[in-house]
Amino acid sequence: MKNMIIGQSGGPTAVINSSLAGALDYAFSSNKIDTVYGMINGIEGLLEDNIIILNDIFEDKPYELNRLKLSPAMYLGSCRYKLKGENAEFKIVVDILEKYNIGYFVYIGGNDSMDTVKKLSDYTIANGIDIKIVGIPKTIDNDLAGIDHSPGFGSAAKYIASCVREVAYDTSIYSIKSVHIIEAMGRNAGWLTASSVLARQEDMLAPHLIYLPEVPFSVEQFVNDVKAKLEEYNSIIVVVSEGIRDAEGNYITADMGNKDVFGHTQLSGAAAYLKCVIEKEIGCKVRALEPSVIQRSAGHISSLTDVEEAFNLGEVAVEAAVNGKSGVFSTLRRISDRPYSVEYGVGDVALVANIEKKVPRSWINQEGNDVAQEMVDYLKPLIEGVVQTPYRNGLPDYVDIRHLDEKKQRYSD
Amino acid sequence: MKNMIIGQSGGPTAVINSSLAGALDYAFSSNKIDTVYGMINGIEGLLEDNIIILNDIFEDKPYELNRLKLSPAMYLGSCRYKLKGENAEFKIVVDILEKYNIGYFVYIGGNDSMDTVKKLSDYTIANGIDIKIVGIPKTIDNDLAGIDHSPGFGSAAKYIASCVREVAYDTSIYSIKSVHIIEAMGRNAGWLTASSVLARQEDMLAPHLIYLPEVPFSVEQFVNDVKAKLEEYNSIIVVVSEGIRDAEGNYITADMGNKDVFGHTQLSGAAAYLKCVIEKEIGCKVRALEPSVIQRSAGHISSLTDVEEAFNLGEVAVEAAVNGKSGVFSTLRRISDRPYSVEYGVGDVALVANIEKKVPRSWINQEGNDVAQEMVDYLKPLIEGVVQTPYRNGLPDYVDIRHLDEKKQRYSD
Repeated sequence: MKNMIIGQSGGPTAVINSSLAGALDYAFSSNKIDTVYGMINGIEGLLEDNIIILNDIFEDKPYELNRLKLSPAMYLGSCRYKLKGENAEFKIVVDILEKYNIGYFVYIGGNDSMDTVKKLSDYTIANGIDIKIVGIPKTIDNDLAGIDHSPGFGSAAKYIASCVREVAYDTSIYSIKSVHIIEAMGRNAGWLTASSVLARQEDMLAPHLIYLPEVPFSVEQFVNDVKAKLEEYNSIIVVVSEGIRDAEGNYITADMGNKDVFGHTQLSGAAAYLKCVIEKEIGCKVRALEPSVIQRSAGHISSLTDVEEAFNLGEVAVEAAVNGKSGVFSTLRRISDRPYSVEYGVGDVALVANIEKKVPRSWINQEGNDVAQEMVDYLKPLIEGVVQTPYRNGLPDYVDIRHLDEKKQRYSD
Repeated sequence: MKNMIIGQSGGPTAVINSSLAGALDYAFSSNKIDTVYGMINGIEGLLEDNIIILNDIFEDKPYELNRLKLSPAMYLGSCRYKLKGENAEFKIVVDILEKYNIGYFVYIGGNDSMDTVKKLSDYTIANGIDIKIVGIPKTIDNDLAGIDHSPGFGSAAKYIASCVREVAYDTSIYSIKSVHIIEAMGRNAGWLTASSVLARQEDMLAPHLIYLPEVPFSVEQFVNDVKAKLEEYNSIIVVVSEGIRDAEGNYITADMGNKDVFGHTQLSGAAAYLKCVIEKEIGCKVRALEPSVIQRSAGHISSLTDVEEAFNLGEVAVEAAVNGKSGVFSTLRRISDRPYSVEYGVGDVALVANIEKKVPRSWINQEGNDVAQEMVDYLKPLIEGVVQTPYRNGLPDYVDIRHLDEKKQRYSD
């Protein structure tokens, strides 16, 4: 019987641990897998032999496994390390894997991490090494190819839409003109920015304007758009991607002439820049809001759909490995929007590695300041369902991650 | 039988509508109150005769009343208007109230709004006008005197503590040195900033440093504090009040030499400034996070304790008015921390009007970079309990506020 090792890589989402929980759930009940190891800080930790045994912590502990499933960020820590593609390095990795009698190597990550899966799988196959290498996709950006939508995206989308809704309530109370500009993550792909549209329902018009990085951004047009909306409504909510660029491809932030107190050029976000523009050109009350990392780690308002899909994709990947597949990632295909239904399967990891899926131009309105109905139909099911976050002392009770801290003994002071 | 009118004033919190719901609940069941009116945009709306009937919307509609109870911001809208204290203006107010046969005037707000309650009550009593004027307190800042803690504070505190916890999960994943600086609201009183300490539990040390506006802020000491923490831990979370000032009383932000693209001096928040300082003096990865209005309108993660107390204070205020009291506000006194217990009552509105309650120096540690145990004991019960937010289409289903929008007909397009 072989052992399994699993790791996480790239930036956090609210449901990477759901995929870990799903993978563990399958592995613990499989009669082909003995011990399940976790690499701390991904492939980088593996190279440093920084490995823990996960059976002790989660096997036959349903409360702990469920808490893991509902905890944001990464229980195993992350890295940004990409394998160089050199045989010498592959050999080091394989030596470590063989030392632990690993038969199944499972990696949760984005398109960079899928590159690691691809390279390692190519190497093991080419060299007749019997270790199955599989990937589980994740990213809040939803820019992964080969999958209908990325696990992690639905929860970030739910956060952004819910944030727009709550900010709209906040801004509604005064009968004065105001503009709130919310900046969403996603430097090259506007999916998350687009998801703000879900706040707009029969009782609410916010967000009034939405700007994605897929369309060149014109500051002049933006000012005209805002002016037009302010003629109709008191308080306007605008959502912009952090990655909006002008027709020449310069980030909107790059135009700022700011110097910080030490004389360095200070690059603000797009929203902060556009706040200055509105103050100057229109002169009404303006706020720039940048939820930053809060939007990707707000586990307490995760999409239940997202959590369950991430969990299932974890199971599917381990199942594929156990069934002898390598160089694949677990994926899902949408069967219908309403009732929402998906089908799970696996795909060649080459389909997803190093590729960025952007928003099709036809899913953005002609003026480039809103999204089209196709986008709404696509997004709607992804934020459905409410997670039953466990609470303790009034706060979300997430899985214990003290093992990620170098100085964990300090906790017992 | 007399009628009642109720209004809301000042900045939003997550539970001002809970107080409105409590007041309505009492009023609807009272045999001394006939119609219940709402003034739109507070006293300013009253002066413009902008008034709605609330019975039609909420009486005998338990789902709607419960939804109101769990919705953030202000169903009736707000204003920043303070009565001038002139008899001519009082007379206009009273004329409108008499036109609607008002016997009970209820105002939900902070210390400015309680000033309105006081002035109006003094006027009616002095002139033998039989209208009872009462207040219901609210503010996220917790700076109201005459009450153990302000309704609205517990929910904002729960948001801030939970945000620190989630950001700590997000930052834990990389094994590199990093500093995250979170800026909390509260310009003069540090209660909300202090509440971040609740994130610190047996499994987590964040926030590592906490700076309140009650203690003069030294940038030099701050840099030393961060350096010392970085020697012990990988990722440091610092929470600062938006109102931190140096020993001369200058806001930390005021030191920025920034010019925006139009040549105007641009004032950043304290966190954004301190980010520059850390980048220059320490050179590690730094992020500044400013949850801004999101922290006061995140109704989906309200404290149930706060919601229930706000509701009860709404009931208590109307009960007092019906029982002939005027110039009072509803208040609560803490009986014990554990088990947590409070006693409701009313107080003279002069106790709360125009006064700011700051954090006692003894509740802050000697170094001025953390809080003392007294603060933790005081804060702990206030964030307890999880609200059962109703969800629809994957998002919090808050009460319909389209009546606050001037162009509400647009919704039916």
